[in-house]
Amino acid sequence: MALDLVLTRIDTDLGGAVDRLMALLRIPSISTDPAFKGDCDRAADWLVADLESLGAAVSKRPTQGHPMVVGQIDGPEGATGPHLLFYGHYDVQPVDPLELWDRDPFDPEVQDTPKGQVIRARGASDDKGQLMTFVEACRAWKAEHGSLPCKITFFFEGEEESGSPSLVPFLKENADELSAPDIALICDTGLFDESTPAVTTMLRGLLGEEIVITGPSKDLHSGMYGGIAMNPIRVLARIIASLHDATGRVTVPGFYDGVPELTEELRAQWDALGFDEAGFLGEVGLSKPAGEQDRTGLEMIWSRPTCEINGIKGGYAGDGFKTVLPSKASAKISFRLVGTQDPHAIRESFRAMVQSMIPEDCTVEFHGHGASAASVMATGHPAFEQARQALSAEWPNPAAFIGSGGSIPIAGYFKSILGMDSMLIGFGRDDDQIHSPNEKYAMDSFHRGIRSWARVLDAVSKG
Amino acid sequence: MALDLVLTRIDTDLGGAVDRLMALLRIPSISTDPAFKGDCDRAADWLVADLESLGAAVSKRPTQGHPMVVGQIDGPEGATGPHLLFYGHYDVQPVDPLELWDRDPFDPEVQDTPKGQVIRARGASDDKGQLMTFVEACRAWKAEHGSLPCKITFFFEGEEESGSPSLVPFLKENADELSAPDIALICDTGLFDESTPAVTTMLRGLLGEEIVITGPSKDLHSGMYGGIAMNPIRVLARIIASLHDATGRVTVPGFYDGVPELTEELRAQWDALGFDEAGFLGEVGLSKPAGEQDRTGLEMIWSRPTCEINGIKGGYAGDGFKTVLPSKASAKISFRLVGTQDPHAIRESFRAMVQSMIPEDCTVEFHGHGASAASVMATGHPAFEQARQALSAEWPNPAAFIGSGGSIPIAGYFKSILGMDSMLIGFGRDDDQIHSPNEKYAMDSFHRGIRSWARVLDAVSKG
Repeated sequence: MALDLVLTRIDTDLGGAVDRLMALLRIPSISTDPAFKGDCDRAADWLVADLESLGAAVSKRPTQGHPMVVGQIDGPEGATGPHLLFYGHYDVQPVDPLELWDRDPFDPEVQDTPKGQVIRARGASDDKGQLMTFVEACRAWKAEHGSLPCKITFFFEGEEESGSPSLVPFLKENADELSAPDIALICDTGLFDESTPAVTTMLRGLLGEEIVITGPSKDLHSGMYGGIAMNPIRVLARIIASLHDATGRVTVPGFYDGVPELTEELRAQWDALGFDEAGFLGEVGLSKPAGEQDRTGLEMIWSRPTCEINGIKGGYAGDGFKTVLPSKASAKISFRLVGTQDPHAIRESFRAMVQSMIPEDCTVEFHGHGASAASVMATGHPAFEQARQALSAEWPNPAAFIGSGGSIPIAGYFKSILGMDSMLIGFGRDDDQIHSPNEKYAMDSFHRGIRSWARVLDAVSKG
Repeated sequence: MALDLVLTRIDTDLGGAVDRLMALLRIPSISTDPAFKGDCDRAADWLVADLESLGAAVSKRPTQGHPMVVGQIDGPEGATGPHLLFYGHYDVQPVDPLELWDRDPFDPEVQDTPKGQVIRARGASDDKGQLMTFVEACRAWKAEHGSLPCKITFFFEGEEESGSPSLVPFLKENADELSAPDIALICDTGLFDESTPAVTTMLRGLLGEEIVITGPSKDLHSGMYGGIAMNPIRVLARIIASLHDATGRVTVPGFYDGVPELTEELRAQWDALGFDEAGFLGEVGLSKPAGEQDRTGLEMIWSRPTCEINGIKGGYAGDGFKTVLPSKASAKISFRLVGTQDPHAIRESFRAMVQSMIPEDCTVEFHGHGASAASVMATGHPAFEQARQALSAEWPNPAAFIGSGGSIPIAGYFKSILGMDSMLIGFGRDDDQIHSPNEKYAMDSFHRGIRSWARVLDAVSKG
């Protein structure tokens, strides 16, 4: 069987695959720091060369920032299967604080740990290790069969960790070329747990708002004005306290418009995952889910919208005590959005609600900080069920369609700019320490990740 | 008449009095900055010499910090009048920010302004100018009559602007000597307005509390934990929002125990003052009194207790946005107290109330920052009515017994340690810019202040 030969080749070539990943990890492609601009360029060159070795028509494409890499490999002669796009990013997070690393972040090493072998380096998981799982699956397929099972476009970005400033313009300028594939595969997410693979089918959106309330025109002394002068911290506290009701629901009018209920099928899949809520909370010193009372823990972090206070300040907050009655108080508030919640409508409704709570003697300023809707994947597309079965064949536990509390904007851009659906499959683990010192990628994630993509390619190309 | 001769001498010697005050103002006796320790000592020496020139038995008394000055002058032979203690402080506030001063803060100058002549310098009003009004009244009395009208103890402190760390130990160690007088006169308060003198008969107390609420054991990412993890800012906001009810009353249980109603007489005096509430608020950009709905503006700042939020912090409050879900949130909260409110009982009640609002997954720490009860003067003492009539004779408008929103702890210490009542009379104005750049003292405050003390000494010594 074609797939079995590929899987066997993946197993026997694992050492070569690790060597190639380590070569890529040695390039310190920190996108946010201009000092590493040349290294980002080198990482792009390395990927161009590697894809060329697979027979791709590939080029480095300049942008205002770091270059994109776009390559293409045709499927077998006369193939009628789908055309896939694969996305990953070659840039990595900064390494500060360097003193908390056990070794040079750009001198990768395979290490034995109580939980098995890991590849330790900045970018090992996010996202170089993950993107190479797909490249290695293609390499094995090509080596075994002389071609890939279907036509594939590779698209690698070098600015994901610094806000992707060049991404939208690039997608728009190259929409004709990049919108040709049938579906995008994105490898920048995680397993549900070490035994349970996942297709991430819902990503929460994010709306950020900052409110600044002004009362008196200057800071006052509470000895002179305390009692008669309006204190903006009191006003702010009243607003924040009113954003949730006693059951944990968000009170912004219209907030739940477009929030879908889980399908019975998805609810059954999630229940079967056996989420260790106590362990998840216990790791950060908590014991009780703080969201809507009638929701499960997984719903709270994956499929329910939230309102969080990310920061607050006002008056004197240093050491000691000052009896100041401050002129201003401010808070940064964010909303995680799901389903078809409209960030712009919620922003307007939130602002109107806050405005209605501002007393006569105060004013409020609003500062918007981003507004992105949730990404809900087109799970009706046949590739999703094909992938779920392919992943279930590789891992100890069956695969699940899961949610993610965070945001991965790329899927939204593929949909809105290219009209293309995305399927997010990744093999990261919660303890990979991405964005932190001592990042690692489990060898099992890398090895089974490559095998998983071989199975997914097989399943999806057969249709 | 004995008093008239003294008043005339005060008028003719005003230039000399100004020169003496300016000599004292040239000494930069900033008590909080160790660099000025020698200057504080010099200011004490200057006062010792000046009191000696009046014939006082006077000495500089060392403390752990800056010295006290204690002097005594007997009354006329065979006098049966009262023995008075006069208190003032010779230290001054720091001068930062120096660039906002129009001239060297320690190079005093008499300036013409649209509101009349002023003496401009750090300490001109607080408290060197004020304490010299009393010294100059004594000087004129002595010059005219060869003696003072009654026995007087002078007590000058040099640490008032830095929290008076040596005061309580000094009062305790010298209680025998300092408790001999019948009543203390304190000159560190203000006029009601430029035409209306005042005896300050109630000073609010102050209770400071800091609360620190901890939820998760570390800062979390709201993408991963938003919705399921308790956010301590939400808890803190709910507590702060609950501290006042819809009518502006403080909700801490038992808070209003010991809060007296105004007597009809005092209410009539206050109503007669014609307090310009709109002007008072308008100067700081406000228009509406924010205290208890059924109270007048003067009650809110003088005779009603308050709860103010002086500072709040939690999460990320810098530029931009971070979707952090913070581990901790904290607030500094103070209460202004009146009547016989018990600061310790209120602290306990406040802490119990806050504790009852802490959810299962959070903890709270309390940090106390001072607890002083209100000072309510013994207005039944005959000196108060004598002083009120004496002041009324000097100024365009009759004098009133008024309150003060701030705290002057010295009166409380005189009562609790020496068993002595205090009478607070001062001539500062709201626009004196004490503690701020370009501090000044109106020449009219200085001149009429000296004359006022001559009248008060006359009235009180006659009994």
